[in-house]
Amino acid sequence: MADECILPDEADDHFHDECGVFGIFGRKDAAAIVALGLHALQHRGQEAAGIVSFDGSQFFVERHIGLISDNFTKPAVIERLHGSRAIGHTRYATAGGSGLRNVQPFFAELADGGFAIAHNGNLTNASTIQRTLQKQGSIFSSTSDTETILHLVATSKEKDTNARFIDGVRQLEGAFSLVALTNKKMIGCRDPLGIRPLVLGDLDGSYILASETCALDIIGARYVRDVKPGEMIVITDHGTESFFPFEPQSSRFCIFEYVYFARPDSSVEGHNVYEVRKRIGAQLALEHPVDADIVIPVPDSGTPAAIGFAQAAGIPFELGIIRNHYVGRTFIQPTDSIRHMGVKLKHNANRRSIEGKRVVLVDDSIVRGTTSQKIVQMVRDAGAKEVHMRIASPPTRAPCFYGVDTPSASKLLASRMTTEEMTDFIRANSLGFLSIEGLYRALDEAGRNNEAPQYCDACFTKDYPTRLTDQEGSENLRHPSVLAAGGHNS
Amino acid sequence: MADECILPDEADDHFHDECGVFGIFGRKDAAAIVALGLHALQHRGQEAAGIVSFDGSQFFVERHIGLISDNFTKPAVIERLHGSRAIGHTRYATAGGSGLRNVQPFFAELADGGFAIAHNGNLTNASTIQRTLQKQGSIFSSTSDTETILHLVATSKEKDTNARFIDGVRQLEGAFSLVALTNKKMIGCRDPLGIRPLVLGDLDGSYILASETCALDIIGARYVRDVKPGEMIVITDHGTESFFPFEPQSSRFCIFEYVYFARPDSSVEGHNVYEVRKRIGAQLALEHPVDADIVIPVPDSGTPAAIGFAQAAGIPFELGIIRNHYVGRTFIQPTDSIRHMGVKLKHNANRRSIEGKRVVLVDDSIVRGTTSQKIVQMVRDAGAKEVHMRIASPPTRAPCFYGVDTPSASKLLASRMTTEEMTDFIRANSLGFLSIEGLYRALDEAGRNNEAPQYCDACFTKDYPTRLTDQEGSENLRHPSVLAAGGHNS
Amino acid sequence: MADECILPDEADDHFHDECGVFGIFGRKDAAAIVALGLHALQHRGQEAAGIVSFDGSQFFVERHIGLISDNFTKPAVIERLHGSRAIGHTRYATAGGSGLRNVQPFFAELADGGFAIAHNGNLTNASTIQRTLQKQGSIFSSTSDTETILHLVATSKEKDTNARFIDGVRQLEGAFSLVALTNKKMIGCRDPLGIRPLVLGDLDGSYILASETCALDIIGARYVRDVKPGEMIVITDHGTESFFPFEPQSSRFCIFEYVYFARPDSSVEGHNVYEVRKRIGAQLALEHPVDADIVIPVPDSGTPAAIGFAQAAGIPFELGIIRNHYVGRTFIQPTDSIRHMGVKLKHNANRRSIEGKRVVLVDDSIVRGTTSQKIVQMVRDAGAKEVHMRIASPPTRAPCFYGVDTPSASKLLASRMTTEEMTDFIRANSLGFLSIEGLYRALDEAGRNNEAPQYCDACFTKDYPTRLTDQEGSENLRHPSVLAAGGHNS
Amino acid sequence: MADECILPDEADDHFHDECGVFGIFGRKDAAAIVALGLHALQHRGQEAAGIVSFDGSQFFVERHIGLISDNFTKPAVIERLHGSRAIGHTRYATAGGSGLRNVQPFFAELADGGFAIAHNGNLTNASTIQRTLQKQGSIFSSTSDTETILHLVATSKEKDTNARFIDGVRQLEGAFSLVALTNKKMIGCRDPLGIRPLVLGDLDGSYILASETCALDIIGARYVRDVKPGEMIVITDHGTESFFPFEPQSSRFCIFEYVYFARPDSSVEGHNVYEVRKRIGAQLALEHPVDADIVIPVPDSGTPAAIGFAQAAGIPFELGIIRNHYVGRTFIQPTDSIRHMGVKLKHNANRRSIEGKRVVLVDDSIVRGTTSQKIVQMVRDAGAKEVHMRIASPPTRAPCFYGVDTPSASKLLASRMTTEEMTDFIRANSLGFLSIEGLYRALDEAGRNNEAPQYCDACFTKDYPTRLTDQEGSENLRHPSVLAAGGHNS
Repeated sequence: MADECILPDEADDHFHDECGVFGIFGRKDAAAIVALGLHALQHRGQEAAGIVSFDGSQFFVERHIGLISDNFTKPAVIERLHGSRAIGHTRYATAGGSGLRNVQPFFAELADGGFAIAHNGNLTNASTIQRTLQKQGSIFSSTSDTETILHLVATSKEKDTNARFIDGVRQLEGAFSLVALTNKKMIGCRDPLGIRPLVLGDLDGSYILASETCALDIIGARYVRDVKPGEMIVITDHGTESFFPFEPQSSRFCIFEYVYFARPDSSVEGHNVYEVRKRIGAQLALEHPVDADIVIPVPDSGTPAAIGFAQAAGIPFELGIIRNHYVGRTFIQPTDSIRHMGVKLKHNANRRSIEGKRVVLVDDSIVRGTTSQKIVQMVRDAGAKEVHMRIASPPTRAPCFYGVDTPSASKLLASRMTTEEMTDFIRANSLGFLSIEGLYRALDEAGRNNEAPQYCDACFTKDYPTRLTDQEGSENLRHPSVLAAGGHNS
Repeated sequence: MADECILPDEADDHFHDECGVFGIFGRKDAAAIVALGLHALQHRGQEAAGIVSFDGSQFFVERHIGLISDNFTKPAVIERLHGSRAIGHTRYATAGGSGLRNVQPFFAELADGGFAIAHNGNLTNASTIQRTLQKQGSIFSSTSDTETILHLVATSKEKDTNARFIDGVRQLEGAFSLVALTNKKMIGCRDPLGIRPLVLGDLDGSYILASETCALDIIGARYVRDVKPGEMIVITDHGTESFFPFEPQSSRFCIFEYVYFARPDSSVEGHNVYEVRKRIGAQLALEHPVDADIVIPVPDSGTPAAIGFAQAAGIPFELGIIRNHYVGRTFIQPTDSIRHMGVKLKHNANRRSIEGKRVVLVDDSIVRGTTSQKIVQMVRDAGAKEVHMRIASPPTRAPCFYGVDTPSASKLLASRMTTEEMTDFIRANSLGFLSIEGLYRALDEAGRNNEAPQYCDACFTKDYPTRLTDQEGSENLRHPSVLAAGGHNS
Repeated sequence: MADECILPDEADDHFHDECGVFGIFGRKDAAAIVALGLHALQHRGQEAAGIVSFDGSQFFVERHIGLISDNFTKPAVIERLHGSRAIGHTRYATAGGSGLRNVQPFFAELADGGFAIAHNGNLTNASTIQRTLQKQGSIFSSTSDTETILHLVATSKEKDTNARFIDGVRQLEGAFSLVALTNKKMIGCRDPLGIRPLVLGDLDGSYILASETCALDIIGARYVRDVKPGEMIVITDHGTESFFPFEPQSSRFCIFEYVYFARPDSSVEGHNVYEVRKRIGAQLALEHPVDADIVIPVPDSGTPAAIGFAQAAGIPFELGIIRNHYVGRTFIQPTDSIRHMGVKLKHNANRRSIEGKRVVLVDDSIVRGTTSQKIVQMVRDAGAKEVHMRIASPPTRAPCFYGVDTPSASKLLASRMTTEEMTDFIRANSLGFLSIEGLYRALDEAGRNNEAPQYCDACFTKDYPTRLTDQEGSENLRHPSVLAAGGHNS
Repeated sequence: MADECILPDEADDHFHDECGVFGIFGRKDAAAIVALGLHALQHRGQEAAGIVSFDGSQFFVERHIGLISDNFTKPAVIERLHGSRAIGHTRYATAGGSGLRNVQPFFAELADGGFAIAHNGNLTNASTIQRTLQKQGSIFSSTSDTETILHLVATSKEKDTNARFIDGVRQLEGAFSLVALTNKKMIGCRDPLGIRPLVLGDLDGSYILASETCALDIIGARYVRDVKPGEMIVITDHGTESFFPFEPQSSRFCIFEYVYFARPDSSVEGHNVYEVRKRIGAQLALEHPVDADIVIPVPDSGTPAAIGFAQAAGIPFELGIIRNHYVGRTFIQPTDSIRHMGVKLKHNANRRSIEGKRVVLVDDSIVRGTTSQKIVQMVRDAGAKEVHMRIASPPTRAPCFYGVDTPSASKLLASRMTTEEMTDFIRANSLGFLSIEGLYRALDEAGRNNEAPQYCDACFTKDYPTRLTDQEGSENLRHPSVLAAGGHNS
């Protein structure tokens, strides 16, 4: 029987962010607005989504497998989500397994009322906490690390909601940008390192929490500010109140958000993502110059860096690879003979633009390397005289434990090959990666502060900024970089 | 209750081609290959698709509403389509109404065996023929003009299949690129003017018929040649045979295929679509120069012309408008208040790239003008100092009757406004359309031959190259250009 | 892998009627009333159903796989069926293959307007006519014999609808009780032998056509009369008009309708089905008396005959076999071990009622004999001292070609065994079938008139009352009974 | 818009049992056998069902809305349920609200392994316990009282599973027949009064727990014995072990199981249900004799009592009311005019059997009385000279809190009318209910022991055998009848 699977050359060979969150407090049609916000955050997770709303007396929950536009555009669905307060979540399926029971926001009726929570990021001590809670009789209904937070709030001995929430999040390690909804308030919270993004917005006086600014733009909301690393912001009818329940630490925002995850029209901490990517491309042209006729992006993720490269190098930018807009996730592979045809489901090189040319090919990153290999071959088959691959980030060498779907280290091309070997593997005439210092420079830093790195760049450097309790198998094993960085959450 | 409808500023304000066709003769896994070919032609119609295969003794039919990747990637579906010969069709729903019974290919067991047919184009005398056939007792099971062809073949008094097919197509007026499958042969046929494209390909000795060359590229097939206007090509186990059943005429290929319909990586009659669009952009820069800081495409259809414009004008090209890749066809509009928010479901302007700049905005065409109005406004809201709109085609003034979904003339902005009025309407600082002569020049013509136009450009010129019998309401009114075989409608 | 199939002992070992028809003319909410009528006729076909309505200007068609209560109770479906005239059909899937395209009523836009038709029965010359029509260019969109009638009407050279209809039905052989709807009238028609039932009803002045009187009862309509064999009744705004387009013949109503097909609360030609079945039971007690303690029906089809038997024999009637009301058509058979367990999905014998008793078991008929074998065994396993099987019809020896799903003759137990062999096969202490004369006597006849039988009893006697053209394979072979108009097949 | 609702005269005016449970330990294809067992228990709950299996290392859960035959006959579903141990549940939707999250068995990974539980019955202190647990931080993921049991086991401080289970069930009040599955054992448990049934069976050495014996019969399993009231039976690889964790009390089995809930072929505590119903009918004939021509059951629930009545009274038994076997739960009610037609979706009186007759109509119970009213009218409309209604149970005056769906007391006809008023209301010539003493006599008792009633008959007597903590709103309020009866659970 035929396998239903992704054809090898069509696999989307990228790291994948696992979530987007969005909430609005005090606005008519709140759920409809959350649906729009999540639609703008769809690139952060496409497998499933959910919205919880509150109408002053009751909570309403809708969770569905599939895209926002497939589920949350149905009037029947939106109409069931009454109320002027709502939070939502869109997710990539890997973390915690798929299935409806893992779709967020999670909701429970606690002793003092309903409590809903949506989470972007990943905890590094969730299994450890879960085992402790189960011994005390807590029953978990999902395999998601996020449910752990819900149970910590539920079993806290503190009296009021804020104190219970603080009690809960203080026990967490890892990355968490949270949006929670109770019968009185909406709460936003970022882990002390601020690994995942979270911004505060304003729509005609109603507060919004969102993963990225593009989710404010879609509804014409005003960007107020980024929620600060380690900040817990509580939104009620009387406005916002901020708490800082964690020991202060220097922030370590995920640098890969700039490389690939965030939408180019979003801005984080004052940096516009599109402009950062163009500067990355310019820096790449500086670090790895090449004599060539045209610069071609691997669409669409390589496009801004390719434009930056082309402008800096003075080489014409061309759309030499055309992307099929109707690519779904899977395609038929009925027989070996078809699999071996090497069909071009996703991309096609435009021979007329390429034939006889020396081509600079710009992509954002190399993960397993299989896609790069196929694309170089496709460009060669279209008649390129030379193919020079330029990668808009350093080699990715280590997995992420902070809410990003990454293959195990052994599958990362850069973890088992030198650049020379990779050049051979993808059969390019030359291959150049952006340096880690160059990446920091594109972010307007003088360079990486190795004593106290300004970003989380563990996927390039293996320098994890938090404990990895669940990985270590031992609560006593401290991660060196955490100790070295001085701060940790205990 | 809430309306489920397209928000006004999100409506896809374009002409829409209505079909793509694909067939392969004599190749294992024929249906799987047709599915791949149709996937590459998905831009020509997204509402529904079908495949008919033949295994030497039996025909198999699968027709589904939805994308190829949603339906024809299921092993169960493909496995039901036995055989080494298959044809397929992907369609845009407008012509003949939606519903499964209108999904092509059409199939019938005729007296001498099964007969399947797939059609790109539109007949201009289908209703007239249908009335005649019904009077003779023919029963129509769809509302599609294509079924008319099937009945003409079925009721022909000729003896063999070729003669019956010729008998049928000779009665047709309008645009038709056909692929048919019988128990002996696959037949391709283009109307005498060659209004819609159809190419012949070869995959390791198996013949392919396809609407565009990109459908050959996806499976690595070789482009052999375009099927000629007025040619009927019959493919059997013994090779191909060509017939020319129509009175010879000069060809009138649809010029709008170059402007918008065809995929940029396709080539038609020797012209690469991407390169034509770049030349259109360059020509546009020549015709309507402007002092500006950046050139921004309306993605994705305006991109090649924008690149051409930028290169010719020496102004930097920027992706100032970001497209949401997860746009479905409809989105919620629960209340007036949300409808009036002017949400940006599909596009977002990137303020950082635009603020304070003089912007050239390049789009492929203006139909109703509503999208242009919204996009100009969005770019202004993002801080542009000036917005100069440049359109990569002449003003569209007239509906198409040849297989393109166009609004009625009264809804076409250019049919009721001058360029000055349109500039005001879309609130641009300036507005420039490519001239009809410029468009022909981008196609390497010296200009339009008004006595015998080289292309069908009726949507710009109202010069329809065939009779419009169903429109005219009279069978006796002959269309001058048909009589003159080379004349035109003026 | 597990087979999804009917467990052997659970197969419904019965002949199956293939259709029920219903129409109403001139009543608000016509489609809703048709749905109710079809619901009452659901026992005549459970695989699929359809309704066509007409609102004075337009026809509306809904056809669905599944039960009436699953599909035609949805307000959205009923609301799409506008108008005060409607006809409907419910079908058993065997004839002509399954699939939506075979679901009736069939509808076509003919030259003089829409025409819908629903058919109970089966034509014995449909394939022969179809081949002729295909040679003339007719295109068939289903594999149902009913579509043939539609094409005959469409291709008739007659001018007005009545004449075209008459022209069509005169060419038919076999069994047909038809209900048709045009833009002017509703037409009912029974074949000249009246093989299948069709009654005329009245609901507050609106005429109704229905397969059985129980479909009048459900809506409180008044029974007017049976449509006569060979009658064509035309209902318009001005009332009814009758035509007799066929050569007169003695009627041959299907006697098996009394034995099993019709609902017990229906009446046909003055005979109430329940009362006939009780008389059959009494006659059976007379023909095959037995010394026993209790009479038990095989539920539910054997119940009226068992009551009749028990009353006539003076033996207590008991519900010794309990039927599971939730039996679907299929059940799991994951492994051989479970298949060999002999699970009792449909029936269970109640040990307490049976243990130590001499049991008379009454069933309506024996087809393959497998169910009888299992049920006798089940009753024995429950402790019965003796099991005497009594069958409320003669041995079924021959297939039906008039709209009943029957196995081929070789699979009919009675066609390959004597009564003695059958007694052994089902392992009963004794086995008695009603005689053919006894069956006629239960219908108040003195006996069967072998020269001119009063009923069609071909499944018992092989005496087919019409030509079987498609079976014979020769158009020239005339069936004697047709020529003789009152003769029979011997 | 049309309402999708049950037509008034078609509402199923009965009490409804809410659950059936089934488990098997140590048998290949365990889940397939559970599906068969649940199919036999389908009459105890039709809205949803679930199965949990265990294969020695992992648990597998499938829960679906709909009938067993709709969901658990799919090989794909059954094949996902690996292992030789499995329990299942079929439910009626009312208790705890509908929705998949309330479908049983419930399953959780507790600290010492997986734990699944299925429950027939209803707790009368679940809300009270739930509030306490929530205060301690337990998170409930359903609205079902059964989840409470799961949390009590999870939060028990006892060490081993048996002790934790005992700790949990000792806190419960109300009715509970439980089947639980852990990674080591299957546990059955009945509340101390044994209100709901539970039997132990044996299939070739594998133990089975089931609500009724008919679920043993379907798979040919042997009935071993009833699980005793207050017994906890633990099944492991080493056999069974019994515990009696509750203070001993006299049993109070639900007497309504004999009247209506249980399947007639089941036996409880030595009484065969069909035989009890026949004796009820005979007792009814004795208590309320009548001069009549025929005895007609309201099918199917009144049939055994009607047979008993007819035999005792010497009046012929007739199937005068025919039931439509294809009744779904809802039917269209598009307009007032159709609603007022009084359509007969479910039953039809057979005029020929009834006309001119004096009819005894036998039904099992009267709840709201609306159905009785319609049926009496229907029998009168069919020409009955007299209609004498006989009810095979005492008047139902009080709601049930032990797992039966009953209307509030104010909607029970007998709670607001005398028998004379009821006779008028249903427009019968006479109306007779079985006496409470007569009901006990049909169960071979000399009569009801009012000091210590042998059964729970609260729906007739308001004598509730347990505390109704959640109802009382106060944990200190003792129910008088419980005190008076001497025994209670503390």
